[in-house]
Amino acid sequence: MILAIDIGGTKLAAGLVATDGAVLSSRRVATPQGADARTLWKTLADLVEPLIKGVEGVEGVEGVGVGCGGPMRWPEAAVSPLNIPGWRGFPLRDELARLVPGVQVRVHNDAVCLAIAEHWLGAGQGSANMLGMVVSTGVGGGLVLAGRLVDGGTGNAGHVGHVVVDADGPLCGCGGHGCLEAIARGPALARWALDQGWKPGRASNELSRASAVQSGQVSVALYQEETAATGRQLAADAGAGDERALAAMRRAGRALGIAIASATNLCDLDVVTIGGGISQAGGLIFDPLQEALREHTRMEFAERVRVVPAALGQDAGLVGAAALLLQGDHYWNGP
Amino acid sequence: MILAIDIGGTKLAAGLVATDGAVLSSRRVATPQGADARTLWKTLADLVEPLIKGVEGVEGVEGVGVGCGGPMRWPEAAVSPLNIPGWRGFPLRDELARLVPGVQVRVHNDAVCLAIAEHWLGAGQGSANMLGMVVSTGVGGGLVLAGRLVDGGTGNAGHVGHVVVDADGPLCGCGGHGCLEAIARGPALARWALDQGWKPGRASNELSRASAVQSGQVSVALYQEETAATGRQLAADAGAGDERALAAMRRAGRALGIAIASATNLCDLDVVTIGGGISQAGGLIFDPLQEALREHTRMEFAERVRVVPAALGQDAGLVGAAALLLQGDHYWNGP
Repeated sequence: MILAIDIGGTKLAAGLVATDGAVLSSRRVATPQGADARTLWKTLADLVEPLIKGVEGVEGVEGVGVGCGGPMRWPEAAVSPLNIPGWRGFPLRDELARLVPGVQVRVHNDAVCLAIAEHWLGAGQGSANMLGMVVSTGVGGGLVLAGRLVDGGTGNAGHVGHVVVDADGPLCGCGGHGCLEAIARGPALARWALDQGWKPGRASNELSRASAVQSGQVSVALYQEETAATGRQLAADAGAGDERALAAMRRAGRALGIAIASATNLCDLDVVTIGGGISQAGGLIFDPLQEALREHTRMEFAERVRVVPAALGQDAGLVGAAALLLQGDHYWNGP
Repeated sequence: MILAIDIGGTKLAAGLVATDGAVLSSRRVATPQGADARTLWKTLADLVEPLIKGVEGVEGVEGVGVGCGGPMRWPEAAVSPLNIPGWRGFPLRDELARLVPGVQVRVHNDAVCLAIAEHWLGAGQGSANMLGMVVSTGVGGGLVLAGRLVDGGTGNAGHVGHVVVDADGPLCGCGGHGCLEAIARGPALARWALDQGWKPGRASNELSRASAVQSGQVSVALYQEETAATGRQLAADAGAGDERALAAMRRAGRALGIAIASATNLCDLDVVTIGGGISQAGGLIFDPLQEALREHTRMEFAERVRVVPAALGQDAGLVGAAALLLQGDHYWNGP
């Protein structure tokens, strides 16, 4: 039994995962906003506590696997998640090792854990060379080559959100310009549509809350919630034929296709999985994505790449975190 | 002792390589232009013959390693080198196995072999995560991650020349648009400069032979020779302050920097080596390259990447081909 933990800016999740990847029980709590390091840790420890106790006399926790928002110093897992300002260089692995003594604790980037989960039990199952992507408030990913997770020099391989798709493009959160993330992340997508004159809900008549995103005053949690709402609104309006909403989806889809083409040409990938809110927009995103991808993968080996929606649901993060131990031969290259 | 072979559009090379990578003897011959499959094979067999005989009674050939222009079906090495039209699906590995019976024959892409050589004994020595590039008539490469060569699903990983740097950019030989190769390969670079009004030699007063390139009537061999001559001319003119030549070098350098940034962000690279003619242009290429690279690698992990000129000379292809056997644990994932 593995104790799996998924740490994000809006929620903390923990669960017990069996050898076959089944999530036997799980708990969730909102990430306390604006909290200091100690409060954040206490929240996490309280979340985990019943799970540790609950299995006494059953089997016991044999290891702890964690997916956490980056960046982090890896593999020691001193974490500084962008969306959790209270943790800067927080010694997550060491704290967890004290909380659950005597077992291995393995921590990796949350997007990497999602990719691992899709490779192990999801849409990338059976492929040896896969890029697993998450397109949401940010754009992240994990890279599996020759059946093994690629870590790169510092555990940061998989940052497909920072493949350059338009060198003179918009400023990115990383400080660069024209990264995929700067164009395809939910808030950037909505902002671009609004700048083009999109009137949320005009086409689909659904309630819009996009103005809150525009104000820039919302908390991280609200921001992400609004992002999801705005993304849904944008997709709904695009589906209803709103030209500006359609243009925004098309722009993001093409940016994804270009970045995936570059990754495919460089790494000779078999399959790319896409999770996160945007993957639910269906053809509105996937059609322009495929169009741009085909334009930019013209060599025979690259033409064969398949891009598919992620198959696992909201437990994927826990499954991937558990796989750091359960399938360590494939997904753990750390000490 | 390994029999190493390097097969390109302008020359065929073969040599005997010792366990430590030293090239003990080597021979070269021009690739017969416009020759049929049989003539090409005979030329290669004649080149190799004295090397096989020469070691009788000494040690004997323990394996055959080959770098060959792509594309090819890998690992069976049915080769169709772009610059050798007489070979289409030519069963290179099988033919060599008949010529040198009883030993293993391993064939890989020539750019991959150059990358392997740089990683083993050249500018990438000691790094675990490296992209080895060749910028010449084409732009190729090989990817080493976690100290092992990455093959991808079909042996085609490393095609950094087809990372997209300008999605709306010029048509590429692969059929795509705005690939790095479409901008930074020697002929494209010269062509762009000429289109901008570059008058070869005006700045540096050196003899120009660029007009032959423009005519489109030159053979492959002449074309490559002209490319080198034109590249040198362009670099000379840029060095002498010719603004159009400088702009061309700057454009190519920036394209290289953007593609390297994308690869670095995706694969968390330690080092990138650049060989081929263009790497001899020094700061004229490397300054704009570094500038663009720094603009597009803003995350801490990516900032650390080093881009350095390749360190090995004209025997690099033979050394890398030999390493497919001598260092097979690192560089051979085939059967």
